[in-house]
Amino acid sequence: MPKYNAVTDSVRKELQEIVGAKYVLSDAERMEPYSHDEVTDPKYVKLPEVVVFPENAKEIAAIVTLANREMIPIVPRGAGTGLASGAVPFKGGIVVSLERMNKILEIDTETMFMVVEPGVTTAEVQKAANERGFLYAGDPCSGDSSFIGGNVATNAGGNKAIRYGTTRQQVNGVELVTPEGDIVTFGGKCKKDATGYSLLNLVIGSEGTLGIITKAYLKLVALPENAMDLLAVFPDLKSAIDIVPKINAAGITPTTIEFMDNEAIKTVEVFLSEKLPHSDKGYYIIVTVEGDNEETLEDQCGLIDDLCTQNGALEVLVADPVKIWKARKAYAEADRARSLIFSMEDIVVPVNQIPQAVEKIAELGKKYGNIAIHCAGHAGDGNIHANILKDHMSEDEWHQKLPALQGEIYQMVYELGGKLSGEHGIGYKRVKLLEEYADPTEIKLMRNIKKAFDPNLIMNPGKVIEV
Amino acid sequence: MPKYNAVTDSVRKELQEIVGAKYVLSDAERMEPYSHDEVTDPKYVKLPEVVVFPENAKEIAAIVTLANREMIPIVPRGAGTGLASGAVPFKGGIVVSLERMNKILEIDTETMFMVVEPGVTTAEVQKAANERGFLYAGDPCSGDSSFIGGNVATNAGGNKAIRYGTTRQQVNGVELVTPEGDIVTFGGKCKKDATGYSLLNLVIGSEGTLGIITKAYLKLVALPENAMDLLAVFPDLKSAIDIVPKINAAGITPTTIEFMDNEAIKTVEVFLSEKLPHSDKGYYIIVTVEGDNEETLEDQCGLIDDLCTQNGALEVLVADPVKIWKARKAYAEADRARSLIFSMEDIVVPVNQIPQAVEKIAELGKKYGNIAIHCAGHAGDGNIHANILKDHMSEDEWHQKLPALQGEIYQMVYELGGKLSGEHGIGYKRVKLLEEYADPTEIKLMRNIKKAFDPNLIMNPGKVIEV
Repeated sequence: MPKYNAVTDSVRKELQEIVGAKYVLSDAERMEPYSHDEVTDPKYVKLPEVVVFPENAKEIAAIVTLANREMIPIVPRGAGTGLASGAVPFKGGIVVSLERMNKILEIDTETMFMVVEPGVTTAEVQKAANERGFLYAGDPCSGDSSFIGGNVATNAGGNKAIRYGTTRQQVNGVELVTPEGDIVTFGGKCKKDATGYSLLNLVIGSEGTLGIITKAYLKLVALPENAMDLLAVFPDLKSAIDIVPKINAAGITPTTIEFMDNEAIKTVEVFLSEKLPHSDKGYYIIVTVEGDNEETLEDQCGLIDDLCTQNGALEVLVADPVKIWKARKAYAEADRARSLIFSMEDIVVPVNQIPQAVEKIAELGKKYGNIAIHCAGHAGDGNIHANILKDHMSEDEWHQKLPALQGEIYQMVYELGGKLSGEHGIGYKRVKLLEEYADPTEIKLMRNIKKAFDPNLIMNPGKVIEV
Repeated sequence: MPKYNAVTDSVRKELQEIVGAKYVLSDAERMEPYSHDEVTDPKYVKLPEVVVFPENAKEIAAIVTLANREMIPIVPRGAGTGLASGAVPFKGGIVVSLERMNKILEIDTETMFMVVEPGVTTAEVQKAANERGFLYAGDPCSGDSSFIGGNVATNAGGNKAIRYGTTRQQVNGVELVTPEGDIVTFGGKCKKDATGYSLLNLVIGSEGTLGIITKAYLKLVALPENAMDLLAVFPDLKSAIDIVPKINAAGITPTTIEFMDNEAIKTVEVFLSEKLPHSDKGYYIIVTVEGDNEETLEDQCGLIDDLCTQNGALEVLVADPVKIWKARKAYAEADRARSLIFSMEDIVVPVNQIPQAVEKIAELGKKYGNIAIHCAGHAGDGNIHANILKDHMSEDEWHQKLPALQGEIYQMVYELGGKLSGEHGIGYKRVKLLEEYADPTEIKLMRNIKKAFDPNLIMNPGKVIEV
């Protein structure tokens, strides 16, 4: 790790000259919101030395050039809705907030692309697309507040990934300020590109360590006119999850297949003070199908109903989307309400390994002294959000048991052909874990790539990969 | 560029020990097929020093380790169906043919992945998927003979890209032998992955310069039960191409939207000795829609018919797929029959810029003394295969005019927001062009990435990027 320099008064002055004095923040109290993301554990909080609010790529290029010259860490930040502490300045330095770069630059309905600045919220992108009769298919759960730049930087997943893919599949180009201060565009409006290495795909999901995204070219697709939601309740997890390959094999590509285990359902029921169907012993599968032809959707729902019933479902309901999605989305909040401190794991396994993974997680919870672990997530793509609850455990016990328990979970996940993060990313939280579980050759290549982009290692240091 | 060493007798002996004597070829006559790809211009032919036929990744790792130690260039080769001379050993060295690695290793219908060795043909992959009721959606025109490893290495495009994406979107993992001889897997059967830089996407489309793909994890999708093909004939190119955004905006996502300009149609008609509809003055748009529900397809075709008619189509025909695809696929052959020497350009522009690009190309053809240039290609994704015919021009005139003409074409393409290759790749043919037209920052980063993977620069040197 290189030796970084502090932000001096003269650097601060230079920053003021670049973006204007009112867009440079040094006051501790006002910088507090920039000291953490959605992870509230004090371990993952660190105050920036300075926060700047540039207006355009040129200003960012000047800031980065300055930081690169002075060997000062630079941390790009979107809406701060991350769950891996990727936007927190653990090595000090300059936080670059993209808040002011919040314009939709172009909606090109002929080529079906939307060009946006990074500080537009995902919800605004979705709304603007819908208003013109198109769909922007990226749909992370944090979409109401998350910035599109952060979605691209983290390759955000979410609820529509099984049909449309993660954010990677929605992005056809980015403008990037490189760690050496160059402004460059990878991709754009061409639907195909065979001109060398896909630097675009390298930047997507690089969590702000290879540069700062200053523009994104987003794909628009046809907006399905109709949607139907089904809630299938199963008596156990295995029969619930087993339905996923059956739905796929039947030639149906739903937009969403989510699951909630029984413990998660019970906790949400308490949190919402609302009776949920079969909450005494049910396991939920929520399926959304979308399309233009209502009849086709009804046929698909009928077929899914049959498949679920054959697979032992207790009941299959046409679900009120508002109610069922409220329950699904309350999952994390409900756990937080029960136990302010909890660890949200983001493991991913091959789809047919979900039952084994969840069963094993339950066993491990018991083994460590009946620690409550709730599981819900994206059944359609094998991505399990396992919440490990601290409940009434002492701080000491928690900090002693948690890493050991996580270690066993990750070990099991890799044995099942899985990975330690499906959509939340490595950020700062999982750097050591990645180094432990990834192939050493992969780690070595990632280090080399980091150096290939960022020879002085100033861009979001200590995230994704430690060099 | 480093100084490479020749393949000595002792190296040849070591190679024989690795793969067995019968799988090492040094005889010039038998090596001839390995001296070129589909580009037959003598400028792009070069005999290997030796060709080896390994059976597995371990043997390849041993070969690469040897080459890396001895500073000998190594060139991976699939079926040799490339169009950019990417598999030709211009700097000498060892050609590694993947022909013997031709096994389908696994068809996992539960997680919907097929795991294959690189030497399986695309057609075999498609067939194996179909037999189990699935679709493998990669579909390059060369699919009957091309190897899947080559498809991945070049991110092959093809006929279904507008609906399913290029090969990149079909691949969820690769096993790779790195240029330093390590065997590593990127991705696999997890449908999501947020564990660091996407090395998988860097390898896809890297044209064998970052390692040798020894296994690929391919996505299977639901197989549409029905298909319908329409041929819409327009009086001019602009009204033909204008139909593309209209079809998209109508909420229809065809599998294919292809186009042929009038000159291309006329040449194919002569070549096939078959009357084609409105060949006197027509411009073709060929649309394929696929789905399970025949009624929906009929509705979609009706809607497309209306849109085409409103847009001035001379006629819209329900096409015999065999006949119409025979005509479209004969495009290159027909030009070759007319003029053995011709240059097939692979430019790509934003979809709505196709008419401008094609008109300008026609103008440039006239400007250079009535050089015949035929255009056809993938209208749905802006990828134009412009064939520049030598016809009866002298060698001298051809070699003098072609680069100047190409230069003006590429200049125009970049002004329209396009790129110099949509799907055929850079290979050896376009290295200098890429360096000329890509952003210098992009070129610099590509060079750094090449070095990050291949410090001794032995892996397919001189392709994609010259270091």
